[in-house]
Amino acid sequence: MERIEKLVIVGVGLIGGSFALALKEAGAVGRVVGVGRGASNIRSALELGIIDAAGALDGTTFGDADLVLLAVPVGQMRAVMRSIAPLLGARTVVTDAGSTKQDVIALARRELKGALSRFVPGHPIAGTEKSGAESAFAGLYRERRVVLTPLEGTDPGALALVRGAWERCGASVFQLQPREHDAVLAAVSHLPHVLAYALVDQVARHKSAKQLFSYAAGGFRDFTRIASSHPEMWRDICLANRKALLAEIGRYGAKLDRVRKMLERGDARALDALFSGARDARKRWLKDAQ
Amino acid sequence: MERIEKLVIVGVGLIGGSFALALKEAGAVGRVVGVGRGASNIRSALELGIIDAAGALDGTTFGDADLVLLAVPVGQMRAVMRSIAPLLGARTVVTDAGSTKQDVIALARRELKGALSRFVPGHPIAGTEKSGAESAFAGLYRERRVVLTPLEGTDPGALALVRGAWERCGASVFQLQPREHDAVLAAVSHLPHVLAYALVDQVARHKSAKQLFSYAAGGFRDFTRIASSHPEMWRDICLANRKALLAEIGRYGAKLDRVRKMLERGDARALDALFSGARDARKRWLKDAQ
Repeated sequence: MERIEKLVIVGVGLIGGSFALALKEAGAVGRVVGVGRGASNIRSALELGIIDAAGALDGTTFGDADLVLLAVPVGQMRAVMRSIAPLLGARTVVTDAGSTKQDVIALARRELKGALSRFVPGHPIAGTEKSGAESAFAGLYRERRVVLTPLEGTDPGALALVRGAWERCGASVFQLQPREHDAVLAAVSHLPHVLAYALVDQVARHKSAKQLFSYAAGGFRDFTRIASSHPEMWRDICLANRKALLAEIGRYGAKLDRVRKMLERGDARALDALFSGARDARKRWLKDAQ
Repeated sequence: MERIEKLVIVGVGLIGGSFALALKEAGAVGRVVGVGRGASNIRSALELGIIDAAGALDGTTFGDADLVLLAVPVGQMRAVMRSIAPLLGARTVVTDAGSTKQDVIALARRELKGALSRFVPGHPIAGTEKSGAESAFAGLYRERRVVLTPLEGTDPGALALVRGAWERCGASVFQLQPREHDAVLAAVSHLPHVLAYALVDQVARHKSAKQLFSYAAGGFRDFTRIASSHPEMWRDICLANRKALLAEIGRYGAKLDRVRKMLERGDARALDALFSGARDARKRWLKDAQ
């Protein structure tokens, strides 16, 4: 991989900050400039050595950048793309870390103009429920997957640069069709987030909420961990991928209805089959994932 | 607390085995006898020093026991109670660790006969997704809650013995009405288990299941951890508490329907309110739980 002399991170949170830290640790980057709307977050990023300088939406920041990572919530992507499009240098490669890809690509087609061929849509499948620069760490992407969903006209050199950068972060890079990516993530990530938020909301709105929470234990804690995720980010993801997510919610509702019927008719065999099948599938997954 | 000279554990798995280990570590028990239908599990329990001897459903095992803990799946409770009722000594106290209480109490009323007043219904709110004697450890109950749901006629000495034993395991003991217990646990434990099993089942039955699992990450892993729980045990719990569980599933289905409508109409504000509210409620809970 070519060394990245100048990296610009727009949105220096968990995702963007960890990308910068990982590349620094790997010696794969020269200078990192951070751009963000939260002044105190940018200050933290500077103090923590995640970025070397604070930039702005101007030509000085973007004109000579080798790589720009857009790590803002999906809902801010359009405005950011529109702002940076006229500022990008002729060789600047742009990538993103958005959790949905079809919508980001649609925005890029409209907003990035001449830079579209140097835009490499990406999604690192990593994260914690924490957000902000202070939660960033260099190891976040180690042994994790990053999905790239290049377009037909994506420049091979731009693709290679982005792929190489993620690999230097310790990630394995895969390519998927944008639509395929969104369907997969709706099932294994977006749906679980919705389910976890909904469960916490249900308990919190219960008339004996305080008592209920007082008896919630480790199972509840782990099940709902993702309900501590960034609400604005997840609102945007859910809306951006609502077609695939609605399909998964529909399937899930129907499944829950089948469980309800099993319980109503006291069908021990069907419940056993469902629970055993799920346990076995999870066991196989954990084994394969090793 | 009176020292327990002889403790009998029926069902030496995670729950029963950890109770024995915790009492041994606290020096609160003399001899521990284990009874179970799995010969290899009982052998493990002996080898691991969880029990000192293997017992059987006979007078030698139960006649001189100070305390008997029934730590079998709820579905086996009836048969176990029926078998031991005529074997219990005149001072033997019996307790259970069943995750549902109304049904266990109904069984005890029918099966325990003269020993009913020395039966203290209990539920330690602790556990992991693992099962079997090998998963037992002395610290399982430390700083956890144990709920006792004594009956009107429960002998105060029996209650004190059981309360003291759990306290020696490091747990905090609370008393609830059986119905109250079952409603609380349906909301914060039984429903999440059903939701986790259902999600894994949904992914596993997907036409691209293998691909889906390959992109599942940490959020999915934690959300579904409880779907690795013992299927037979959870089938029994769900059936035993089906009335309260059905009420919670009904509420949850309605909530999911509301989320579906928010997505359909692209209602960012409502999604934000739901997600933010849930995150804040979870944050308060974690803070209060400390």
